[in-house]
Amino acid sequence: MIVVMEEGATEAQIQAVIDRMVEMEFSVHRSTGMVHTVLGGVGPEGEIDPTGFEVLEGVKECHRIMSAYKLANRHFKPQGTVIKVGNIEIGGPRVVIMAGPCSVENREQILRSAGQVAQAGAVAIRGGAFKPRSSPYSFQGLGEAGLQMLRQAADANGLLVVSEVMDASQIPLMLQYVDVLQVGARNMQNFNLLKELAKIRKPVLLKRGIAATVEELLLSAEYILSGGNYDVMLCERGIRTFETSTRNTMDISAIPTVKKLSHLPMLADPSHGTGRRDRVIPMARAAVAAGADGLLVEVHPDPDRALSDGAQSLRPEQFAELMEQLRIIAPAVGRTV
Amino acid sequence: MIVVMEEGATEAQIQAVIDRMVEMEFSVHRSTGMVHTVLGGVGPEGEIDPTGFEVLEGVKECHRIMSAYKLANRHFKPQGTVIKVGNIEIGGPRVVIMAGPCSVENREQILRSAGQVAQAGAVAIRGGAFKPRSSPYSFQGLGEAGLQMLRQAADANGLLVVSEVMDASQIPLMLQYVDVLQVGARNMQNFNLLKELAKIRKPVLLKRGIAATVEELLLSAEYILSGGNYDVMLCERGIRTFETSTRNTMDISAIPTVKKLSHLPMLADPSHGTGRRDRVIPMARAAVAAGADGLLVEVHPDPDRALSDGAQSLRPEQFAELMEQLRIIAPAVGRTV
Amino acid sequence: MIVVMEEGATEAQIQAVIDRMVEMEFSVHRSTGMVHTVLGGVGPEGEIDPTGFEVLEGVKECHRIMSAYKLANRHFKPQGTVIKVGNIEIGGPRVVIMAGPCSVENREQILRSAGQVAQAGAVAIRGGAFKPRSSPYSFQGLGEAGLQMLRQAADANGLLVVSEVMDASQIPLMLQYVDVLQVGARNMQNFNLLKELAKIRKPVLLKRGIAATVEELLLSAEYILSGGNYDVMLCERGIRTFETSTRNTMDISAIPTVKKLSHLPMLADPSHGTGRRDRVIPMARAAVAAGADGLLVEVHPDPDRALSDGAQSLRPEQFAELMEQLRIIAPAVGRTV
Amino acid sequence: MIVVMEEGATEAQIQAVIDRMVEMEFSVHRSTGMVHTVLGGVGPEGEIDPTGFEVLEGVKECHRIMSAYKLANRHFKPQGTVIKVGNIEIGGPRVVIMAGPCSVENREQILRSAGQVAQAGAVAIRGGAFKPRSSPYSFQGLGEAGLQMLRQAADANGLLVVSEVMDASQIPLMLQYVDVLQVGARNMQNFNLLKELAKIRKPVLLKRGIAATVEELLLSAEYILSGGNYDVMLCERGIRTFETSTRNTMDISAIPTVKKLSHLPMLADPSHGTGRRDRVIPMARAAVAAGADGLLVEVHPDPDRALSDGAQSLRPEQFAELMEQLRIIAPAVGRTV
Repeated sequence: MIVVMEEGATEAQIQAVIDRMVEMEFSVHRSTGMVHTVLGGVGPEGEIDPTGFEVLEGVKECHRIMSAYKLANRHFKPQGTVIKVGNIEIGGPRVVIMAGPCSVENREQILRSAGQVAQAGAVAIRGGAFKPRSSPYSFQGLGEAGLQMLRQAADANGLLVVSEVMDASQIPLMLQYVDVLQVGARNMQNFNLLKELAKIRKPVLLKRGIAATVEELLLSAEYILSGGNYDVMLCERGIRTFETSTRNTMDISAIPTVKKLSHLPMLADPSHGTGRRDRVIPMARAAVAAGADGLLVEVHPDPDRALSDGAQSLRPEQFAELMEQLRIIAPAVGRTV
Repeated sequence: MIVVMEEGATEAQIQAVIDRMVEMEFSVHRSTGMVHTVLGGVGPEGEIDPTGFEVLEGVKECHRIMSAYKLANRHFKPQGTVIKVGNIEIGGPRVVIMAGPCSVENREQILRSAGQVAQAGAVAIRGGAFKPRSSPYSFQGLGEAGLQMLRQAADANGLLVVSEVMDASQIPLMLQYVDVLQVGARNMQNFNLLKELAKIRKPVLLKRGIAATVEELLLSAEYILSGGNYDVMLCERGIRTFETSTRNTMDISAIPTVKKLSHLPMLADPSHGTGRRDRVIPMARAAVAAGADGLLVEVHPDPDRALSDGAQSLRPEQFAELMEQLRIIAPAVGRTV
Repeated sequence: MIVVMEEGATEAQIQAVIDRMVEMEFSVHRSTGMVHTVLGGVGPEGEIDPTGFEVLEGVKECHRIMSAYKLANRHFKPQGTVIKVGNIEIGGPRVVIMAGPCSVENREQILRSAGQVAQAGAVAIRGGAFKPRSSPYSFQGLGEAGLQMLRQAADANGLLVVSEVMDASQIPLMLQYVDVLQVGARNMQNFNLLKELAKIRKPVLLKRGIAATVEELLLSAEYILSGGNYDVMLCERGIRTFETSTRNTMDISAIPTVKKLSHLPMLADPSHGTGRRDRVIPMARAAVAAGADGLLVEVHPDPDRALSDGAQSLRPEQFAELMEQLRIIAPAVGRTV
Repeated sequence: MIVVMEEGATEAQIQAVIDRMVEMEFSVHRSTGMVHTVLGGVGPEGEIDPTGFEVLEGVKECHRIMSAYKLANRHFKPQGTVIKVGNIEIGGPRVVIMAGPCSVENREQILRSAGQVAQAGAVAIRGGAFKPRSSPYSFQGLGEAGLQMLRQAADANGLLVVSEVMDASQIPLMLQYVDVLQVGARNMQNFNLLKELAKIRKPVLLKRGIAATVEELLLSAEYILSGGNYDVMLCERGIRTFETSTRNTMDISAIPTVKKLSHLPMLADPSHGTGRRDRVIPMARAAVAAGADGLLVEVHPDPDRALSDGAQSLRPEQFAELMEQLRIIAPAVGRTV
């Protein structure tokens, strides 16, 4: 930790800061510049809020120099994490595509979806059985019946199942049916849920919150890793900005940023990232070109009649065309699809 | 709902949109302008995502005209809601001040805090027993022991108790000790939690998420109201912007906006809204001047040694001075403190 | 400047950074921690972009410790700047109110406006003769004729004149008619204009850009100060965020932030800050409660028929009522209106 | 324009709105719903601010349905604009790459840069002779001498010249030396400059402001088009968000959004869009994959010693490698590089 004192800070102010650092078990190194005195501290930085020092008298600013996340840091595993689920590897040379409808609506719909996405080259089917909806008057999902349909549709087509868990109480049920448990953007900082997911032995797909920094995403991953579950993959799905022509602004640069700071696989969800079908395809291409380890794409056999998020779901033939384009792009980053 | 067709939309495209609207049980009124055809629809708007129409061929844009929230709308109760807890009224002529430390740390600390804030004129003590922390390595709260200490400290000083509930499973425990259950910003869209809080008969204080629009805040309130709990108060506590000199940007204008759109009481939390003690006092004054029905303020007997959020906690004497200033300001908006 | 090396940075990487610092004429102090090596540098920080070091091999992060602004820094004039224009002081104990229509439209309109705002207690009339409009098809202002009308209306009522300069070529003309030259938000980083304003001897009112940080606002002020014009006042007028219920989000917390970091007077413009008449009054009160040195308020004799920005202009009787409320609030911060 | 009245709006309120619309020369169509009355208006929408209606009594909201930009609208030229400069086409099947250093520093540097980028396949050299810098203490550019060096270096290598104009007074000088005049992000709404650029007959490259919506970018283009200069190309270069790990958040989705709304060519600048060399390459790939018509990339023979923006400049060998990757990606979108 580094504390920079104000120009003209008094000796008494400097000493008060040093005393406070020592009390918190930092060892302190003082360096007196021509204008600013700087105090370097080695100690329990992870638990400290730098603002606590910034409001002390005579302090100009305070910087933490150790990352607040340890296990999610690239230094912890410089070669990168590869998560194996069945015979699929996430974070390896192949860019993995997970696709399917926003919600499981009925047996017919999910079975058709699974067949269509498998044929185009997806490795997993995604679909929600429990739906977080901004309005209490919107469709809320089929629950366990939906999970069963999803599992059957996946098995019939050799696919993995990815589905969202909304509450710790749903975990035992989810474990019976799904291969990857997804944590949605709204729950990225639902710490009770993260702590429970740390205890399971199935991979977790953690989505970035719409106002979360990359550092906060990595800190949320740290909750799962530090509890003993090392199979965490991350996902960019759009952040909130002033721009209104798309639902969110998909932060493609978060992909190379996460790859640099962390060893965890990084996926992208261009469907939620844009909210509009006509933007999904260009943004899916962009994500792979920027180095994403995989994609989550919403595909629906009849998007105009979807019970949720139809506007951002691709038609099956659009998805197949996208897969063709990705097969051209992936070699530019040394990957396959 | 209003659908505006593109300049040059074909008759077939217009008809396809009308068919889709009819299928969704809207009655449709068509008006053909010189440039744009406009389709007005009366029907089940609350459940519709306008983007679903915007991606249809030939559509320029689609606007919902009914508010997605009904019970939270000011039209539902034009005179405004006053919540009674004991002999305190929230939303009435008196601006209610709730104050106390971020976390309950020990019996001595919370008892001193309660005495100090009561003497200065607060009506409730606030303090966390379960703490949501970005890092898994930070202090996580005292749990039930903390709630007991809080209750005793409040009773000894004639105060109400406000404390945060982080998970539906904690509700029964909270109900034994607290008068107002607070939902934190990170949980504003934890819909499972909101649905459970709809079933209780104690007031809920719902904080705005750091990237939530005012409309989304009102939709989250709707989850609680529509389940049967009408005692909901809202709270602004800072939104995330590009500015880095404060932790968040406290959106004071949300106060008059909520008062116009909704009948629910609107509080403000200048402590989380700024993250820095030296900004809390001016922003607390600003919130009351803008028409807030109450404040949540962090006060700690010794902020420099607080286990959490010390940087944003006022010293007791600063809080007393703030109360004096608020007593001058409140009459400008026809209120008392 | 402080450069923090990555965990595991090699000796060669550290040496390369030191060499680069020395080459840029920094004197370097090295401190080797258990995890991170930290390099402190004293030298020409003002001209350095810290990112230039952050992209060197083995560097984790780099922090500038000297403020990039010098003359705008509070240390330069701890007692605060008071700008005198005629017998009015800006930055002194009296909160100064500048009011008037968005644009000068005709003689009758500006004369009535001046009379109305003077009677209610304003010290200056504001009004635009050159209008920056997002659309080329909107009203663009009356030019010199407008400035003449403004001057006459002000003189008839004992008011100062504040008006916006949009281009360096307009300065000589403005100097004939106005007392304070306003730089609009869109021009906050029009450096050519700022350099020319540094050469004049009339006060400049510099508005914060809608996406500018407080630090950038102070750097823009530095352009004017460093060229020799010390009479600079700043103004908050709303920043752009994801919230759509107001045109901008007025950042009230920028007021105490600027007062802490700088000695320059800080005003607030609740009209542009909110864009809606019904939000202007609460936000004006909030700004004064937060410590603003003055306000810019749009007032129009007949806002519904204004040629620009009518939606955010107060009616004269609303303005008079606001002034009454401000007279109650100002004593809470030790001021008068 | 569509005006939606509040639930419970009185007949007098509705009539007042109709009267106001008629006075503004709209023809009005009234449709009375079960809950809301809706007023449709055909008339001079381009000049109207919808907020002016939203603050009238009884009005819920008001939507403009005609785009505020006309000449920049895709409907004006559905096949898309191709700008010809010499034998280069911008907006055609070839993705055009413009590269070079941030600033022209000396003859040797710009000559080496031109040789290097030409060899790798760029069609234009970019470089600044007038530099907009946030701090008055930073390097401000070489002026005309820089333009001369740029022209010579370009001619020696068969390249076009792109350079930034900061003020209308610089236009005659720029016209002597450059092929494309660039308007920087800070000047996107410098309307005086835009009006002057409308009068010239050389192409203008207009960059999006860091807080500008796509609609505002198109309105700024409209200033140039409506004055008679049809050769306008646009450029995304990063917007400001809460994320701090990159200087800006490059909004890749603006590329397909602009291509849908407008016929103008859309470029991307991954150097300013990210601010860090290690993010430039992935974001350059992403932009081409998303459908950009060209790129602006900063390349410097020795970035560590650049006088400005060295942190975001590629080394020549990195640029050559990027060009190879783009040659793989472009066919996925039916283009060449």
